[in-house]
Amino acid sequence: MFLEKAMFIIGELINGMYKNIGKAIKEKDKAVIQRCALDQIKAGADALDINCGPVSKDPLSDIQWLVETVQEVTDKPLALDSSKPKVIEAGLKVIKNKVIINSTTADQEKLEILVPLAKKYNAKLIGLSISAKGIPQNKDQRLELAANIVAYCVEAGFPLEDLYLDPVLLPVNVAQAQQKDILESIREFKIISDPSPKTIVGLSNVSQGTKTRSLINRTFLTMAIAYGLDSAILDPLDKDLMDSAITAELILNKQIYCDSYLEAYRRK
Amino acid sequence: MFLEKAMFIIGELINGMYKNIGKAIKEKDKAVIQRCALDQIKAGADALDINCGPVSKDPLSDIQWLVETVQEVTDKPLALDSSKPKVIEAGLKVIKNKVIINSTTADQEKLEILVPLAKKYNAKLIGLSISAKGIPQNKDQRLELAANIVAYCVEAGFPLEDLYLDPVLLPVNVAQAQQKDILESIREFKIISDPSPKTIVGLSNVSQGTKTRSLINRTFLTMAIAYGLDSAILDPLDKDLMDSAITAELILNKQIYCDSYLEAYRRK
Repeated sequence: MFLEKAMFIIGELINGMYKNIGKAIKEKDKAVIQRCALDQIKAGADALDINCGPVSKDPLSDIQWLVETVQEVTDKPLALDSSKPKVIEAGLKVIKNKVIINSTTADQEKLEILVPLAKKYNAKLIGLSISAKGIPQNKDQRLELAANIVAYCVEAGFPLEDLYLDPVLLPVNVAQAQQKDILESIREFKIISDPSPKTIVGLSNVSQGTKTRSLINRTFLTMAIAYGLDSAILDPLDKDLMDSAITAELILNKQIYCDSYLEAYRRK
Repeated sequence: MFLEKAMFIIGELINGMYKNIGKAIKEKDKAVIQRCALDQIKAGADALDINCGPVSKDPLSDIQWLVETVQEVTDKPLALDSSKPKVIEAGLKVIKNKVIINSTTADQEKLEILVPLAKKYNAKLIGLSISAKGIPQNKDQRLELAANIVAYCVEAGFPLEDLYLDPVLLPVNVAQAQQKDILESIREFKIISDPSPKTIVGLSNVSQGTKTRSLINRTFLTMAIAYGLDSAILDPLDKDLMDSAITAELILNKQIYCDSYLEAYRRK
């Protein structure tokens, strides 16, 4: 089964923007990448994001090397992460594990390429509620963009239960007044259609540039779970963050209580 | 002003069920009580709960001694906490600070005594959504009991903005399936009437008997704040708990962001 529990956690750490990963990609150092994959899985990740990072000079080749390297040590789903459809397509060519496309926007030219690709590869698809016009400024604009993505998927025959809508988190220190709208978008996205699309956030964005990143991340995530969030891309090695997520699910009756419920989750 | 910020925090620690407080009440040791009052205020409490505890042999006299002892060092509001209206009435007789009556149930015989007392003393009133018939088993029963309390207050001319409805938390280890209903009750209570009543929880109940009390408390509180909670009775000396509450308010734009927002809150 692909989604066995309520929150589907995608580990964010295999990303070339992190120094150690960027260096490992450049030097084709498999051990660093594979260790990072296994550490995240051990900490509770259900899937792994794969991103060459902004400095890759040959992203089509780099993403294929990353996918093949990770597939040597795990059969967990991989999220191919790039704003360039060609990079995602390159990754798909070597995928053996289950796969998530991360991500399309609400722009027609992206949807035209990525929705058919997602169908062809039986992939889940992350849809960001943004477009080339920019980042939405309120929840109505978010809902409109999300509804455009849903409409396109319906038209194309892409199953909505495989669509993950992302309201696009903004840093709390620059967009404080928008946070509540973003949380409410999580709830609103679920009622766009029947069957419901799923919801996802790229969590770390919310704390960019702040001095209490882990605290803000876990507080936002707990609130988002209260609003019905299905999935998050996050750092599973942040133990406090994972403890918060597991406990929020416990409270929503999605994890069974026992005195050692935190350990039980990690043994899953 | 009585309620200056979103979350109104009532410190729970002056309670005779705690060994040090029980002993101090017995020995009439003012210093212990006053230190406990000041520590909670320093940590961010907006008001202090006052409870003689279950072993007090003379609760009418003990609550008066506690109130007078605490009023010597602070003018913060006090929550007179007893299931016996006579004990609350005794406390009211010596109150000088602003006051919260903690609490009435939905039972007619309690409402008949406590609502007029709250009016007479210009007190806030906490109303528990329980009755002599027992603890409700779902959110519809909670809503019905809460609505009964609201109806009584309207009839009696008690201002609804001074009414704090409490859905009555149950331990997650014995009532896991009810937690989501309890959270949803917080949202539902707010729309019983216009103006809205306020909502409150006695937080520590949720983690009774568990091995990760602080984690469960702060996770539940964060989710409850996401559901619109106005107030909580809690241990303000639990720094992680207070950090979570302050950060949840930050995300809801009820605290202003600065890099040192946690410290700024505590200097308020």
